[in-house]
Amino acid sequence: MKIDKMNKKILNILQRNGRMTYKEVAKKIDRAQSTVRDRIGIMEEDGVIKGYTVVINKKKAGLDCYAINQCKVDPGRLDEVTRKLLRIDNILQVYHTSGDHNLTFMLATCDYDEMKRILSEKVAPLGISDMEIKIIMESVREMAYTDIM
Amino acid sequence: MKIDKMNKKILNILQRNGRMTYKEVAKKIDRAQSTVRDRIGIMEEDGVIKGYTVVINKKKAGLDCYAINQCKVDPGRLDEVTRKLLRIDNILQVYHTSGDHNLTFMLATCDYDEMKRILSEKVAPLGISDMEIKIIMESVREMAYTDIM
Amino acid sequence: MKIDKMNKKILNILQRNGRMTYKEVAKKIDRAQSTVRDRIGIMEEDGVIKGYTVVINKKKAGLDCYAINQCKVDPGRLDEVTRKLLRIDNILQVYHTSGDHNLTFMLATCDYDEMKRILSEKVAPLGISDMEIKIIMESVREMAYTDIM
Amino acid sequence: MKIDKMNKKILNILQRNGRMTYKEVAKKIDRAQSTVRDRIGIMEEDGVIKGYTVVINKKKAGLDCYAINQCKVDPGRLDEVTRKLLRIDNILQVYHTSGDHNLTFMLATCDYDEMKRILSEKVAPLGISDMEIKIIMESVREMAYTDIM
Amino acid sequence: MKIDKMNKKILNILQRNGRMTYKEVAKKIDRAQSTVRDRIGIMEEDGVIKGYTVVINKKKAGLDCYAINQCKVDPGRLDEVTRKLLRIDNILQVYHTSGDHNLTFMLATCDYDEMKRILSEKVAPLGISDMEIKIIMESVREMAYTDIM
Amino acid sequence: MKIDKMNKKILNILQRNGRMTYKEVAKKIDRAQSTVRDRIGIMEEDGVIKGYTVVINKKKAGLDCYAINQCKVDPGRLDEVTRKLLRIDNILQVYHTSGDHNLTFMLATCDYDEMKRILSEKVAPLGISDMEIKIIMESVREMAYTDIM
Amino acid sequence: MKIDKMNKKILNILQRNGRMTYKEVAKKIDRAQSTVRDRIGIMEEDGVIKGYTVVINKKKAGLDCYAINQCKVDPGRLDEVTRKLLRIDNILQVYHTSGDHNLTFMLATCDYDEMKRILSEKVAPLGISDMEIKIIMESVREMAYTDIM
Amino acid sequence: MKIDKMNKKILNILQRNGRMTYKEVAKKIDRAQSTVRDRIGIMEEDGVIKGYTVVINKKKAGLDCYAINQCKVDPGRLDEVTRKLLRIDNILQVYHTSGDHNLTFMLATCDYDEMKRILSEKVAPLGISDMEIKIIMESVREMAYTDIM
Repeated sequence: MKIDKMNKKILNILQRNGRMTYKEVAKKIDRAQSTVRDRIGIMEEDGVIKGYTVVINKKKAGLDCYAINQCKVDPGRLDEVTRKLLRIDNILQVYHTSGDHNLTFMLATCDYDEMKRILSEKVAPLGISDMEIKIIMESVREMAYTDIM
Repeated sequence: MKIDKMNKKILNILQRNGRMTYKEVAKKIDRAQSTVRDRIGIMEEDGVIKGYTVVINKKKAGLDCYAINQCKVDPGRLDEVTRKLLRIDNILQVYHTSGDHNLTFMLATCDYDEMKRILSEKVAPLGISDMEIKIIMESVREMAYTDIM
Repeated sequence: MKIDKMNKKILNILQRNGRMTYKEVAKKIDRAQSTVRDRIGIMEEDGVIKGYTVVINKKKAGLDCYAINQCKVDPGRLDEVTRKLLRIDNILQVYHTSGDHNLTFMLATCDYDEMKRILSEKVAPLGISDMEIKIIMESVREMAYTDIM
Repeated sequence: MKIDKMNKKILNILQRNGRMTYKEVAKKIDRAQSTVRDRIGIMEEDGVIKGYTVVINKKKAGLDCYAINQCKVDPGRLDEVTRKLLRIDNILQVYHTSGDHNLTFMLATCDYDEMKRILSEKVAPLGISDMEIKIIMESVREMAYTDIM
Repeated sequence: MKIDKMNKKILNILQRNGRMTYKEVAKKIDRAQSTVRDRIGIMEEDGVIKGYTVVINKKKAGLDCYAINQCKVDPGRLDEVTRKLLRIDNILQVYHTSGDHNLTFMLATCDYDEMKRILSEKVAPLGISDMEIKIIMESVREMAYTDIM
Repeated sequence: MKIDKMNKKILNILQRNGRMTYKEVAKKIDRAQSTVRDRIGIMEEDGVIKGYTVVINKKKAGLDCYAINQCKVDPGRLDEVTRKLLRIDNILQVYHTSGDHNLTFMLATCDYDEMKRILSEKVAPLGISDMEIKIIMESVREMAYTDIM
Repeated sequence: MKIDKMNKKILNILQRNGRMTYKEVAKKIDRAQSTVRDRIGIMEEDGVIKGYTVVINKKKAGLDCYAINQCKVDPGRLDEVTRKLLRIDNILQVYHTSGDHNLTFMLATCDYDEMKRILSEKVAPLGISDMEIKIIMESVREMAYTDIM
Repeated sequence: MKIDKMNKKILNILQRNGRMTYKEVAKKIDRAQSTVRDRIGIMEEDGVIKGYTVVINKKKAGLDCYAINQCKVDPGRLDEVTRKLLRIDNILQVYHTSGDHNLTFMLATCDYDEMKRILSEKVAPLGISDMEIKIIMESVREMAYTDIM
């Protein structure tokens, strides 16, 4: 799919404020509201836009324990393990990565006990041979955007 | 701040669709639209809600090179380095973590060359003594939400 | 439980000298002996105070081999392994931690032979897949306290 | 110093209850109270007994962030760094160990912010080149004793 | 086999240009063409020369994903695993090495998906217990030669 | 650049035998010799083809010590260090990679002494802070090709 | 056993020259030859002296491949694995160590092929889960002695 | 130098008993005593034989603390550091190795204090940036020999 200049502008605006109305976006880029609506609709259909979300301050929302978990999974079972992992509550972003750990995921829970319970009862049985938990001591920025150029 | 049951419901809805109107949210939780608007307003003011964003499929948007970078920074300079890091384009989420690398950040660029250029010209001079780049080979889930209970 | 100012003072005193009598503590904080006794009794019941112990110089007491052991345990079996570990003599403090080793424990024995025997005959059969032994070459401070403020 | 059978018995009793009176200890090992008092006095003088302390449940006492820190220090400056480290509040046990990190210490603070502040403002400036923080997610046992035989 | 001065010269020339004709090589080293042909023929027979190849710019040829993979294989099965590995398409150079990973191989594919598919469906089932993937972000030099002296 | 089917066939043939004449290649793919010559010429100009080389059995050619070296270089100086590295004899392939070592290069020498001398006198002074040498105990396959499809 | 001053002198002499006759040693320390003979005999019986050996330059004796191998063995099977390891030719010194590898041994062979064959056919089947081979590129000192004081 | 069959026999005998007289060796291999003496003399001159030593049980000789130290040294200063290291008492065998630590040495001292003192006062100032100490918990075999074939 072709991401032209107008689409880039739209994406960059929505990254900063995902709730902006078509009208507001249209005004910002000096186009017709219908054009903006169409463009966004097409990007949603094409999967360029995956969705819209609120970015929450996890600590303030009572999620005191927040971690990055890096796992080793048998490459032959990586897709299967990932599918099951996605169904577990509290699992947030999930990535396949280079390096000696091939699976990285974010996890947020109320406290350590809940985190331990989820890892032991739900994640471990999926067949994860090695798991390195990095506690996020401060989430400096979660509202992330990158200028698409 | 107290996150009561209604606020939790609102947050869980907005996590899944950050563009839902006050009216739609109100209907979903069977409350008045003004109540929803007030609640959301207060959560925005209190910093429980940090913002709203569009979740983009990076590959489809032309950001072919996407990575998790784990760095060691002198703890005495961690806050200063982080402040400067946040000003660099292409740097997405930023975390302070436990473990032997105390700073983790996400980075998305058009290609390897741009990534190398940013790391060498902008990130390295900040005073980062050790940097481990993990290329995200597949971003399985980026649209993340966790049920706040 | 609420740890008020007086309880904090009492705890800070007892951390430095766990054998101090109620009377001595009372005098130090200028309260009635009965108040101190009650306060301590409540903190013991509530589990704020876990117990009192003598801090021994392990080398002088004939425990020549003292180590920190960091283990990897299948998260699904962590609680079970920990319960069994606690029953083994010579095992001292036990912690669940972040990082790639999820179980850390202290161990003191008369000599290397006894340490090896305990690790091979008692600890290893519990199902510990990876064990990193760090010999404590000097225990600089074991009598530890932190000012509760 | 000679740790004979009676001293061993006394130490094992005091490890389990550091507040037991001379009279109670004497009764338990069927000796005169004066003998127990003398024995304990000598062990205190000889440094076999370093002190007595209350063992506190850190979480319940408001110390929510508890960690094991493993550091690399230039061996030529290890003693100097250690001396300074011992003066920092919140630093608990301190050990010199084998392995690639030669200095291990325990640290308890109210929250992550305080931990970060102490590490960046007080620990880092001492000259610690590499620091791996392991968050204690659960302190399974802190009241530790080992039977001296 | 003896690699004399003339053979060394021939090898050094062919390393830089593997398509050079016997005649051109002969002229360069000031010998008869038949001598060069004989020398090369003998080195081919003796296995000093393993073959001739074109060095391709992988990115330009559509192989966008290029990696160095370091694996741990049970030493008792190393030769068997290696034999099977050599039959997999996309596997390039293969080495047995010192260090904690005993098998290193290069791998080039069109994209991450193909790389993941090959690793999961073809490489992992061979019995590789640990695999560290290093993505080649830039292949600075592939046309390699070393002056044989 | 477009790598069409014919070019792919030509590349796959030349990977297996880099000395094959235009005529032989032409016959194999059933095209005119002039077409093959043109195609190859264009791929050479466009940099798809970087060159042609003889693949030598290093041990048989007297290069007894062959290693993969993985280095950490300050990202801000990576290009400069690489440029200088390329000028050193005995340095073969050079790659920039993901992971905690950002520079990997191959090195072949007559013996350990020569390798040590090159690393200490020529490579180390370039500003390489960490170097992990993996000795190649067996070079199972160096004549590498991958079918371009 | 008591190592008195005279025994120390004898040991220090024999470490430097293990073939020195009783007479020569006696002269050096100004004692009767019979005293020296008796002292040495007792130290041999008591196991202070384990034996005498020639120190060979391995390279010059045709042992071109010399390595330090660090292994992880299930602690419950460490003694059994060690007993079997000691029976394998080419295995030299054997140590149980602290750290994440609990078994370290030296190995010298004619070439890499023999080393690989021994590791795969003889060492691996003993049940060694992880093996890190460090090639000794230069054995700077093998004739080792330490002054016993 | 040529190590023929007879020399190999002699070396294998002397490895097992370095104090055996020429006469005894001669008898064992059924040759004249003068032949043995000559052969040994030549091997000593040629450096095949580096010396003869007594193998001591370090623990029984009062050397309670015995360790393998693995260090990282700037490759450009490796020879200089090694030369100085060799002059330090208590340093035993010294090796240059592959892997991420390029210098390995053995060290035996009376106790941990002496080891720490040597490392901090004598070894560290030589310019060693990273040092991993592995305590030898049991020296299973130090009297090492390998059959030269």
